[in-house]
Amino acid sequence: MKKEELMRRAIALAVENVRQGGGPFGAVIARNGEIIAEGVNRVTAHNDPTAHAEVQAIRAACEKLSTFDLSDCEIYASCEPCPMCLGAIYWARLHHLFFAATQHDAAEANFDDAFIYREIALPHSFRHLPTEHMTTAEAGEPFRLWNAKTDKVAY
Amino acid sequence: MKKEELMRRAIALAVENVRQGGGPFGAVIARNGEIIAEGVNRVTAHNDPTAHAEVQAIRAACEKLSTFDLSDCEIYASCEPCPMCLGAIYWARLHHLFFAATQHDAAEANFDDAFIYREIALPHSFRHLPTEHMTTAEAGEPFRLWNAKTDKVAY
Repeated sequence: MKKEELMRRAIALAVENVRQGGGPFGAVIARNGEIIAEGVNRVTAHNDPTAHAEVQAIRAACEKLSTFDLSDCEIYASCEPCPMCLGAIYWARLHHLFFAATQHDAAEANFDDAFIYREIALPHSFRHLPTEHMTTAEAGEPFRLWNAKTDKVAY
Repeated sequence: MKKEELMRRAIALAVENVRQGGGPFGAVIARNGEIIAEGVNRVTAHNDPTAHAEVQAIRAACEKLSTFDLSDCEIYASCEPCPMCLGAIYWARLHHLFFAATQHDAAEANFDDAFIYREIALPHSFRHLPTEHMTTAEAGEPFRLWNAKTDKVAY
């Protein structure tokens, strides 16, 4: 499939998801023009605020391919990913992102994407989310153990 | 439980997770000093790049409380959340974030948190992730349907 067809599929998933009672977002993960996995927004249906279309597609693709590394795949999102989903795309190491609608389109439909982008760029003390850095003696222990571990599975 | 105890629990989860072969991260979600749910990093164990400790804790808390809105809860993270997890915290509407180790501690242990924070703040064309905005006639259709829907479950 060509990239225009893959994007139309992501948008069609979003349209169908609204008809089914879900949020207006769809995503497709492809490799060499072939669809590996699809995702739609399932936040309210699954009581899972992380169940955005891109996250759902990433989870499904990783499960299908038995890997946590999608560096040979690309993602087509019906809308520009929010910071959570963009972070997930980086962690999954997808090699290319295509999107159609923008975060401003999402904001006009009352989704918080643009607000969260602004928040994440701010120092803690300027964010709406009250944030406290608690320094404790134990804080470094998990990393000390991790760094010393010789048989760890890095990611 | 006091907040110092809740944070020590999050760090203890991270330490135990390294011993079990997972990543060095733990998180606790609490309400009025009572633990609602816990999470540890399961990226490599579950082949799920989104299975960070905070995301796991959010999913578990939402499942336990049968809601996608954790606005009466707070989160204790053994390490400063990455952008994906911070986004998830905003979407879950947690009212307070406490963290111990910083994103710079994570970077010293070769985790990409600080890199992803820098990337997300950049315009698309300056990011390492090749990103393409595809404008198509259908792009606005999911939002048009969503805005017109009178019985939608907003989130």
